[in-house]
Amino acid sequence: MTYTVAVSGASGYAGGEMLRLLAAHPDIEIRTVTANSNAGQPLIAHQPHLRSLAHLTLQPTTPEVLAGHDIVVLALPHGQSGQYTDVLADTPLVIDAGADHRLTSREAWDGFYGGEFHDPWTYGVPELPVGTGKQRAQLVGATRIAAPGCNASTVSLSLAPGVAAGVIDPGDIVTVLAVGPSGAGKSLKPHLLGSELIGSANPYAVGGSHRHIPEIRQALVGAGATGDVRISFTPVIVPMARGILATSSAPIRPGVSDGEIRAAWETAYAGETFVQLLPEGQFPRTADVLGANTALMGLAVDRAANRVVVVTAVDNLVKGTAGAAVQSMNIALGLPEDRALTVNGVAP
Amino acid sequence: MTYTVAVSGASGYAGGEMLRLLAAHPDIEIRTVTANSNAGQPLIAHQPHLRSLAHLTLQPTTPEVLAGHDIVVLALPHGQSGQYTDVLADTPLVIDAGADHRLTSREAWDGFYGGEFHDPWTYGVPELPVGTGKQRAQLVGATRIAAPGCNASTVSLSLAPGVAAGVIDPGDIVTVLAVGPSGAGKSLKPHLLGSELIGSANPYAVGGSHRHIPEIRQALVGAGATGDVRISFTPVIVPMARGILATSSAPIRPGVSDGEIRAAWETAYAGETFVQLLPEGQFPRTADVLGANTALMGLAVDRAANRVVVVTAVDNLVKGTAGAAVQSMNIALGLPEDRALTVNGVAP
Amino acid sequence: MTYTVAVSGASGYAGGEMLRLLAAHPDIEIRTVTANSNAGQPLIAHQPHLRSLAHLTLQPTTPEVLAGHDIVVLALPHGQSGQYTDVLADTPLVIDAGADHRLTSREAWDGFYGGEFHDPWTYGVPELPVGTGKQRAQLVGATRIAAPGCNASTVSLSLAPGVAAGVIDPGDIVTVLAVGPSGAGKSLKPHLLGSELIGSANPYAVGGSHRHIPEIRQALVGAGATGDVRISFTPVIVPMARGILATSSAPIRPGVSDGEIRAAWETAYAGETFVQLLPEGQFPRTADVLGANTALMGLAVDRAANRVVVVTAVDNLVKGTAGAAVQSMNIALGLPEDRALTVNGVAP
Amino acid sequence: MTYTVAVSGASGYAGGEMLRLLAAHPDIEIRTVTANSNAGQPLIAHQPHLRSLAHLTLQPTTPEVLAGHDIVVLALPHGQSGQYTDVLADTPLVIDAGADHRLTSREAWDGFYGGEFHDPWTYGVPELPVGTGKQRAQLVGATRIAAPGCNASTVSLSLAPGVAAGVIDPGDIVTVLAVGPSGAGKSLKPHLLGSELIGSANPYAVGGSHRHIPEIRQALVGAGATGDVRISFTPVIVPMARGILATSSAPIRPGVSDGEIRAAWETAYAGETFVQLLPEGQFPRTADVLGANTALMGLAVDRAANRVVVVTAVDNLVKGTAGAAVQSMNIALGLPEDRALTVNGVAP
Repeated sequence: MTYTVAVSGASGYAGGEMLRLLAAHPDIEIRTVTANSNAGQPLIAHQPHLRSLAHLTLQPTTPEVLAGHDIVVLALPHGQSGQYTDVLADTPLVIDAGADHRLTSREAWDGFYGGEFHDPWTYGVPELPVGTGKQRAQLVGATRIAAPGCNASTVSLSLAPGVAAGVIDPGDIVTVLAVGPSGAGKSLKPHLLGSELIGSANPYAVGGSHRHIPEIRQALVGAGATGDVRISFTPVIVPMARGILATSSAPIRPGVSDGEIRAAWETAYAGETFVQLLPEGQFPRTADVLGANTALMGLAVDRAANRVVVVTAVDNLVKGTAGAAVQSMNIALGLPEDRALTVNGVAP
Repeated sequence: MTYTVAVSGASGYAGGEMLRLLAAHPDIEIRTVTANSNAGQPLIAHQPHLRSLAHLTLQPTTPEVLAGHDIVVLALPHGQSGQYTDVLADTPLVIDAGADHRLTSREAWDGFYGGEFHDPWTYGVPELPVGTGKQRAQLVGATRIAAPGCNASTVSLSLAPGVAAGVIDPGDIVTVLAVGPSGAGKSLKPHLLGSELIGSANPYAVGGSHRHIPEIRQALVGAGATGDVRISFTPVIVPMARGILATSSAPIRPGVSDGEIRAAWETAYAGETFVQLLPEGQFPRTADVLGANTALMGLAVDRAANRVVVVTAVDNLVKGTAGAAVQSMNIALGLPEDRALTVNGVAP
Repeated sequence: MTYTVAVSGASGYAGGEMLRLLAAHPDIEIRTVTANSNAGQPLIAHQPHLRSLAHLTLQPTTPEVLAGHDIVVLALPHGQSGQYTDVLADTPLVIDAGADHRLTSREAWDGFYGGEFHDPWTYGVPELPVGTGKQRAQLVGATRIAAPGCNASTVSLSLAPGVAAGVIDPGDIVTVLAVGPSGAGKSLKPHLLGSELIGSANPYAVGGSHRHIPEIRQALVGAGATGDVRISFTPVIVPMARGILATSSAPIRPGVSDGEIRAAWETAYAGETFVQLLPEGQFPRTADVLGANTALMGLAVDRAANRVVVVTAVDNLVKGTAGAAVQSMNIALGLPEDRALTVNGVAP
Repeated sequence: MTYTVAVSGASGYAGGEMLRLLAAHPDIEIRTVTANSNAGQPLIAHQPHLRSLAHLTLQPTTPEVLAGHDIVVLALPHGQSGQYTDVLADTPLVIDAGADHRLTSREAWDGFYGGEFHDPWTYGVPELPVGTGKQRAQLVGATRIAAPGCNASTVSLSLAPGVAAGVIDPGDIVTVLAVGPSGAGKSLKPHLLGSELIGSANPYAVGGSHRHIPEIRQALVGAGATGDVRISFTPVIVPMARGILATSSAPIRPGVSDGEIRAAWETAYAGETFVQLLPEGQFPRTADVLGANTALMGLAVDRAANRVVVVTAVDNLVKGTAGAAVQSMNIALGLPEDRALTVNGVAP
């Protein structure tokens, strides 16, 4: 069976990456691509790398245009997806690449986003430890999927095994992320110009204001965190178009051995294709996962600092967004989970 | 009076930056430049940007060649400076850009470096809070100066005010640094190739092994830290030739107000030219300090995470190394402290 | 049928890219990977992005290890492939990613390479105009294939249509290429360090010494050039790990119309998947072809300068090297030409 | 004497670089900075690297605000400077960093810019060969100076010596430039976003439409070119914030020896501080001139291609724009020509 798909926000980065992955998916027919101000133009005018989709024209993002597909992907700015909940009621599968359906807590939504609160959808991070299982189980047969925030899922995957196993204390998490600017989207803001970013490291949202913080907290509570979950979160834009390298640490629980710590992560991700723990002493680079759906993770136990340090590399547009969406879609539809996804990065 | 200078390690990055700064110094005559394997070649073959020094030829790094100058700069790999202590006994001022004379603790030296331990020299970070004063006082009239480690001085300057004022707890410091590869020197190692570094973020020395950790601990103890000083330290090489952006945090001491926290840093760096605290809500980029001797610092109080977060940008080769050396030299010689140093960066 | 493959030079960039592509090829079993000094180590220690090949260990590059496969790929430094000609006599298909079997002229070989001259193999650029046909025809059933030089094939593809159609004069070609450093291989040379390349543009082989010049001349003669073929060729390394953007121009023949010029290229590449001429007024970026086997080409007729200007973007490691090899292999084996190759780039 | 200066367009890149250079100039007092939409904000909000100018506030760009200074610098978009000609009639020295006063030919202006034509001012490239002398002579005592286009002056300096000496034929010039995006200004255009530029090479204005072409033609005619001056000009944006690496070539005149060719450039730039010809076989990198007012030039005679190839590196914001302006200003005012300008680049 071939599923028809409409992708909204198709002239942006998240939409473009959805299209790149779906174009290689043998069970998918990309029938419709939509945009707002760019409607009427050829898709390839905005995504010149998508040569195989040169025949598509951007249509306006309206309920009428989106209706009638097996699958609709919403790759819209935060706050814009919610309006489609009702009009797409008959669509078998809807995937939101935005934040509107990620948070279960209205209070968290109000604190970090504001505007209308929408019901949470099934969270699209299959490997995430949830209770004694994994999020994958929730995705089987899901009809409404919320793709994760790229930074959030990276940090959640980094620390959830240790939280679930009780070997680290989620009450004093610190994470600093080197991120590529594509995570900020194709926004015309001065600080995102090439002249500003090339050759420079640029922090933003310092001090607890980043919107992915409640999403991490929610994931870690889901993984079994008890008590306060406190997260110091600092993203730094560095001069690479794509990629996240998250360095996350948390205090070691008293009495826990190095072996127990490592075992928590090994157990959590044993058998996973797309989340891999590197051998002791090895740490990943973002280049290793460029274009791939892989989260590569290195772990160190720093007894002098009394912290477990986890360094995780993902491609923010793949495993962080579109790859997570496709992987979740595959699970939801009963297709092989790795279809149209690669584990090997494009390096150097 | 004009001081004659010899710079060893002149074909490397630290040596080259010393020469760039000293070439603009009206009180300095660069008389001698030395190297090891490159001796006999024109300096400019290895430092093609130093057009004003095109007349200099690299001589071998020997005691005889280095002797007879007013000032000798040792920009040598760690472990190689110590051998010159005796032979340069008559040199009025010796500045070591390497690590050999930084640490006061033989135990720390043995733990992180190994090899012969050498007496500590006066530490070259003038603005660093020391007890109730600053390191500047020690540098007046100094004859042996140890230039700081670039990452170490960045983190020490970031946190020392809060430690000195007792508003943060040095027992659980976490710092993650986005750094340019020039900090690793001109070493022919595969992981430092352009193909490997461009477009990627690359962690190294994860988990507590970086050699700058004891140097930070020493500085914070000097600033007044009591009890354990614990530091989780992770450097990440990012695709910019120069620069350090250090994101450092520490727990807020109980009962301390936001105002008291900010005041600690404001007070510490009030009146300083080269260490500047940005207004609340502002954070620096490394581009802002490229080529300058400036450490720019932004501070956030994150009550949800119970941490003070300090983000500091420096040029690792200037304020992190050669600029710190020249600034310290100016103080030692009684010259204006800012001579030959710029506060404005080269941006964009 | 599944073909077994051995890839030599597997720890280098060209070898690594062959493996990345072949790992996704359904008709190929990667049985053996070899290296020289790195033999005995896991492949993944040198190619950490090739997660699906984590089970492979590098073996020594010897005739015995390479023998017994259906296909052998030689990704060795220039001058080292020739020695395997005899020992691999029984291997059904041998692909050389080096230069040893590219040139048909011993004189050209002696002038630009030197050392022993080897018989030319079938040149691996399927779309290249040759006489009234294309190189593809020669590749059907080929058993010995010389993959092209990345810069050479880029320039040859750029200009061959105009030469074949007689609309441009090959007697005064000028080409300047912005290239990523991965084209220079994983060589430990100071000028290839990240610190040197990041933030800088670096010319090399200026003035007619680059080894790809005779390869271009040979291709253009094959395309029908008469008289002298003169090429001014200047490569400039720029700060992107991969990619070639070649700006090539040649004088317009007298009396030729704009329409005739454009038609030459349109005709030559009509129906080609991997060599595409963009519409008038559009020009490609290297990001558009990252990781893809696509050569994207824009053409301008500059009457004021009396030159046709062709700007072509390729990924030097894919269409420039390994993709060309796989595409040629597919043709030689009678497989679909695009198997395991993508036309869409990874952008942004 | 101290000259008071007003800089308009102070929130942009050209204005910012003027301020960076002037801030270090002992004879200049920066009294006024102006902007349009950013008026009322602190300068440092837009130029966070200019720490020494933290006290300045952007004022509106009006005749009243600009009047009353010894020197006014217009760093405005093309077409906006002309309106100030009359209102600044009493200002002793006006420097235009835009294009409005560069071209002497109304026809060239109409063909490449359009809009109102303004009288040409004295062209600000002191070292440019003009007839049997240099442009420097025109700048002594000048009161109206047109700073050059960055690409134009780079190419003009590259080829003018050979044109003046009659050793190259200006009738078939080809130049391809690797340029940093800061040359395009702080414009909010999608193709200038960091995500688009990082990791990619991006051509623009291909085929003869770039506005610097008539400026080069004018300079070469001034240097003594006879007959048609034809220029194929292609700029390529590469991932470095600053810098131009221009590869320019022209046919060798019949009967000219290699020695005569090299002598033309050696003679032209003998004794020049800021335009330097490298020894035979050496070529410059843009990193070598970062932040410096230096044009570094390498020259090759390619007999096989019958072309002289000149590769020139400049910092587009310094020697290409603001440095040229300051150097010209120094000459106009009778100050030492190199005041506030550096010859050494910031590298690596």
